[in-house]
Amino acid sequence: MRTYRNELWFHVEKRRQLLNITSQIQKCIDDSGIQEGLCLVNAMHITSSVFINDDESGLHLDIEVWLEKLAPEKPYAQYKHNSYEDNADAHLKRTIMGREVMVAVTNGMLDFGPWEQIFYGEFDGMRDKRVLVKIIGE
Amino acid sequence: MRTYRNELWFHVEKRRQLLNITSQIQKCIDDSGIQEGLCLVNAMHITSSVFINDDESGLHLDIEVWLEKLAPEKPYAQYKHNSYEDNADAHLKRTIMGREVMVAVTNGMLDFGPWEQIFYGEFDGMRDKRVLVKIIGE
Amino acid sequence: MRTYRNELWFHVEKRRQLLNITSQIQKCIDDSGIQEGLCLVNAMHITSSVFINDDESGLHLDIEVWLEKLAPEKPYAQYKHNSYEDNADAHLKRTIMGREVMVAVTNGMLDFGPWEQIFYGEFDGMRDKRVLVKIIGE
Repeated sequence: MRTYRNELWFHVEKRRQLLNITSQIQKCIDDSGIQEGLCLVNAMHITSSVFINDDESGLHLDIEVWLEKLAPEKPYAQYKHNSYEDNADAHLKRTIMGREVMVAVTNGMLDFGPWEQIFYGEFDGMRDKRVLVKIIGE
Repeated sequence: MRTYRNELWFHVEKRRQLLNITSQIQKCIDDSGIQEGLCLVNAMHITSSVFINDDESGLHLDIEVWLEKLAPEKPYAQYKHNSYEDNADAHLKRTIMGREVMVAVTNGMLDFGPWEQIFYGEFDGMRDKRVLVKIIGE
Repeated sequence: MRTYRNELWFHVEKRRQLLNITSQIQKCIDDSGIQEGLCLVNAMHITSSVFINDDESGLHLDIEVWLEKLAPEKPYAQYKHNSYEDNADAHLKRTIMGREVMVAVTNGMLDFGPWEQIFYGEFDGMRDKRVLVKIIGE
């Protein structure tokens, strides 16, 4: 059994943004030399997300509007968490979008359907944050 | 270490439907010969879901009503994604329900609590779609 | 390859409560002797959740209010599932919060960012319920 670990760092200039990180995850799999196994990709911060969906700009705008409806940023005072911080909505948005994805590795490749792409979802940006990649297999 | 991979195909006749696929996943575990390990079950499409909940018809109706409240199908024009397509709501519904489940394999069986059942959740049906099963263990 | 399995039992005295179980999961990793691998932690019941977020009491109150907004407990009769039971909302709340987390094990430790903590989320308490811990690695 082989294992591989890496951290990917991101610094998003806005409060919220979605980044397609699929090629960076495939690069990790390449570097690991693992042909068959499972790959965990998770946000190491609790106000960001890793998820799989479509790389379509209209959908990304829909997600922004939808998350603001389900867990609005403002007014800040609606959340108890926002006494020293203003990011309670980011904790909730990340809950909806999910912390992590597990992806199969087959023949050294991400084993994906036709439109699956991996995204880093930043909901409280403007600072350095990390994603963990852990692969096990052989 | 052993690995196993299979695709399950589904063609749902309606736009939305929930299918209990537990016995098909147990069949995959049987075929793999793996006694101890982890089993990933994920939708390969971004408008469908794999999740674990109760096989109770009332709850399934509740889920339908609830998802329509949180991410309504219509009016189609409320979503930017719906210029060439009409399935933006399916992308959002699948986000709520989740893309994947990880299940433990113990003594060659799905290691489940008393009511856990695995479902394929279709939110944009009437065409062939796939679920990936990847098992690692020994 | 080594595997480890354990069940953690909880009996929450209220209908809803969040419990930080991080140290209990680390104890499982210690007991397993596994240094590198993946650890699955999942609710074995379909009205409870395992998730990762911040151990901050204000946020936990926000989550309670937020889940009651997205999937209210009452009136019970709004849900078809509530003919013999009254816990349909718990099934939906657990769907939002998630059934499981996958965590990386590195050097025998939970491989976590600075604020990540694992929680058991009870949404239909006042009875014995279980969490499964399954670790694979070496």
